[in-house]
Amino acid sequence: MAETIFSRILRGEIPCHRVYEDAHVLAFLDIMPLSPGHTLVIPKEAKPTLGELSDESAAAIGQVLPRICRAVCAATGTDQYNILQNNGPMAHQAVMHVHFHIIPKPRPTSGLGLEWRPTNLATSDGAELAERISRLVTSGPG
Amino acid sequence: MAETIFSRILRGEIPCHRVYEDAHVLAFLDIMPLSPGHTLVIPKEAKPTLGELSDESAAAIGQVLPRICRAVCAATGTDQYNILQNNGPMAHQAVMHVHFHIIPKPRPTSGLGLEWRPTNLATSDGAELAERISRLVTSGPG
Repeated sequence: MAETIFSRILRGEIPCHRVYEDAHVLAFLDIMPLSPGHTLVIPKEAKPTLGELSDESAAAIGQVLPRICRAVCAATGTDQYNILQNNGPMAHQAVMHVHFHIIPKPRPTSGLGLEWRPTNLATSDGAELAERISRLVTSGPG
Repeated sequence: MAETIFSRILRGEIPCHRVYEDAHVLAFLDIMPLSPGHTLVIPKEAKPTLGELSDESAAAIGQVLPRICRAVCAATGTDQYNILQNNGPMAHQAVMHVHFHIIPKPRPTSGLGLEWRPTNLATSDGAELAERISRLVTSGPG
């Protein structure tokens, strides 16, 4: 497992503005926020991408996300926000240790900007693809 | 709780291309995908935003996300992807029932497009804000 800046934050070698910590999860402010209150929520388990994370770590992060979202909203006075978790450099992942962004959206020009270029799912293609994914969910490891 | 199209999908009144289901979670293909394999993962609990979701539903979704990500990647031959969960119309939420997008990123021009406009977190501001959020995480409901 490659060392990342988050390994050093987890070991306390680099300071962070911590907002939450438990046995599995650490949350702290992003130092280059897209908007005030931009928070990173990371597993203590060092895995590059979400697909590699253990069920236990993934459940722990999932469970605490709503509570951290409520606190970020209350502290910043916003009620709209995006959760983003990027996997791979092409998908905009900069640190290869799983992290969920909580990004408040106080107004249209602040926070996360999204480009939405939807296509259409042909019904026959969808049925076949869903069947293939479904089989893999069931048969895959974990 | 307002009725949404996802309520009708959950009741089986509208068909979907299902890829996964358990007691708490349903996952199915987005019919307007940003890339092949674009999947929606929703709680059966009908809540508009992540901050309103119960710990139980949130943990259940968190736990199963890695497994569904692995299956989507294996079925589509991609290894990069974004997880996105939007809260509020200004934050690009179209259906007011919590949903996590799994969006494969097969190449730069497909999948999710992001606009990243980072600012800088002044150290003193960060300390105060982190302290405020931290107190709210601890004292807040849930």
